[in-house]
Amino acid sequence: MTALLALDYASVFVFALTGALAASRAQLDIVGFVFIASLTAVGGGTVRDVVLDRNPVFWTGTPGFVLLAAAAAVLVFFTAHLMESRHRMLLWLDACALAVAVPAGVGVAMMMSQPAVIVVIMGIATGCFGGLMRDVVCNEVPMVLRQGELYVTAAFAGATAGVVAAHVAAVDLPALLVCGAVTFLLRAGSLQFGWRLPVYRPRPPRN
Amino acid sequence: MTALLALDYASVFVFALTGALAASRAQLDIVGFVFIASLTAVGGGTVRDVVLDRNPVFWTGTPGFVLLAAAAAVLVFFTAHLMESRHRMLLWLDACALAVAVPAGVGVAMMMSQPAVIVVIMGIATGCFGGLMRDVVCNEVPMVLRQGELYVTAAFAGATAGVVAAHVAAVDLPALLVCGAVTFLLRAGSLQFGWRLPVYRPRPPRN
Amino acid sequence: MTALLALDYASVFVFALTGALAASRAQLDIVGFVFIASLTAVGGGTVRDVVLDRNPVFWTGTPGFVLLAAAAAVLVFFTAHLMESRHRMLLWLDACALAVAVPAGVGVAMMMSQPAVIVVIMGIATGCFGGLMRDVVCNEVPMVLRQGELYVTAAFAGATAGVVAAHVAAVDLPALLVCGAVTFLLRAGSLQFGWRLPVYRPRPPRN
Repeated sequence: MTALLALDYASVFVFALTGALAASRAQLDIVGFVFIASLTAVGGGTVRDVVLDRNPVFWTGTPGFVLLAAAAAVLVFFTAHLMESRHRMLLWLDACALAVAVPAGVGVAMMMSQPAVIVVIMGIATGCFGGLMRDVVCNEVPMVLRQGELYVTAAFAGATAGVVAAHVAAVDLPALLVCGAVTFLLRAGSLQFGWRLPVYRPRPPRN
Repeated sequence: MTALLALDYASVFVFALTGALAASRAQLDIVGFVFIASLTAVGGGTVRDVVLDRNPVFWTGTPGFVLLAAAAAVLVFFTAHLMESRHRMLLWLDACALAVAVPAGVGVAMMMSQPAVIVVIMGIATGCFGGLMRDVVCNEVPMVLRQGELYVTAAFAGATAGVVAAHVAAVDLPALLVCGAVTFLLRAGSLQFGWRLPVYRPRPPRN
Repeated sequence: MTALLALDYASVFVFALTGALAASRAQLDIVGFVFIASLTAVGGGTVRDVVLDRNPVFWTGTPGFVLLAAAAAVLVFFTAHLMESRHRMLLWLDACALAVAVPAGVGVAMMMSQPAVIVVIMGIATGCFGGLMRDVVCNEVPMVLRQGELYVTAAFAGATAGVVAAHVAAVDLPALLVCGAVTFLLRAGSLQFGWRLPVYRPRPPRN
């Protein structure tokens, strides 16, 4: 329970940083930073909680979440100009956020005794939807769509590893660590070394 | 009840095919196919169930839905290169999916004894929102926006016909058949013969 | 309670007008007008009600809301060609809708005894999400993203003023009036006189 809460806080903070970086690329004002940061930070977990009918939605019961997201946005507003490359920073922070949010989704779904398929889906949804909302609203190409990168795949593998580990070990906390580690390793390997799955390509001659 | 379940399965399968075709146009990997296919497949019904507070959301109680969507995605991943025109296939499969999803939405809302206006809206929402999410995420022009085609109109007419038929016949199953048939005929007629309503055009001289 | 209902009706009507204007810019047919108008009109309040688990969602219990939105769409379909500038009309109607929807969100959240942070967020969400959905679906640059304009900022200031006024006066209705007035003044001042907050700009030499 406490570990789940910590995961939710960490996920909110790091996703808020990525949202604020996206806002800096769109040259918004400080309230725009807070808006995009908050949307990114709570979007994935909100989808998870609404679909699973978990009440209250995690951040409405604890206003600290949104205040934390706002603080992250203000921090980025005043420091983003110090970064060498905001785009690269955004990619890597997003990888960290994914590696925290996927276990947050997996953990909540396991706590609610959902079947394994739903646990995996909730891990993917919690990990991917906040960033997806950020990218759609900011008119950036959604990260989940970047060809030849592991993104949803990293979330899927991490969530599956977490479910398997929880089944084998019968202890939840190490399973969540496995889940986050697998997610981060695959995503980071894809960013750093170009790891990828084969993508669909139509035959050249027709269509 | 069983007919409704069959409609939900059919709608999930055909919408998943369209999602996977959209993923093939975006040249994603196989996990990306499954992701977009699942989002398209369950998106409309999820909006319906969340707005009507129907618990659990249809696919969380029955993991078979998402597995079916995943199977459809894998099928398309390995066969899409055999198609003459993936865009044309996408349009026609989407028409079939619409004609199945609208009665699925209408049927659930009628079963929940919603008023006629809400039944019609739920038919439209269940039919249109999965494809809308697919198009927004994949950066395609939403089908609901293509000028001079019947799309929302087909869903609206089908849902209305279903409500009227249920009122006249006092039997639900034939009403759902009428609903699906009207939806498909209007959408197909629009694709094949260019049936349309007049669109709004500003006066040429000003504005 | 009655004041809240009136706010919801006014917000639905004015947002529906803006949705129909966006549909006229996309040159849709009359059913497309009604679809986009309804989505814009009920989008923000639906997010508010789903996140707060308020049942039923405001417009499902009262079909009159969607009928009102449809009437607004039909009105615009037949009169939009009379307007000098539909874009300017859209901007100003959207400002009015924002100034009505923010207090509608604030009022509902206060009535549900939410903490102040959540009340402010629900004001912003109710005010901004309908227009955001309209802009994303219609492929327009979201108003919340237009650089150097007060939009989310106006909603934030209005919602905060409303919370403070309710705390000071201990009466809700005047507080909602303050909330709407502050929102409108800031948004209108931004449109008319170019009021703005400083936006983030990277240092010129690098990045």
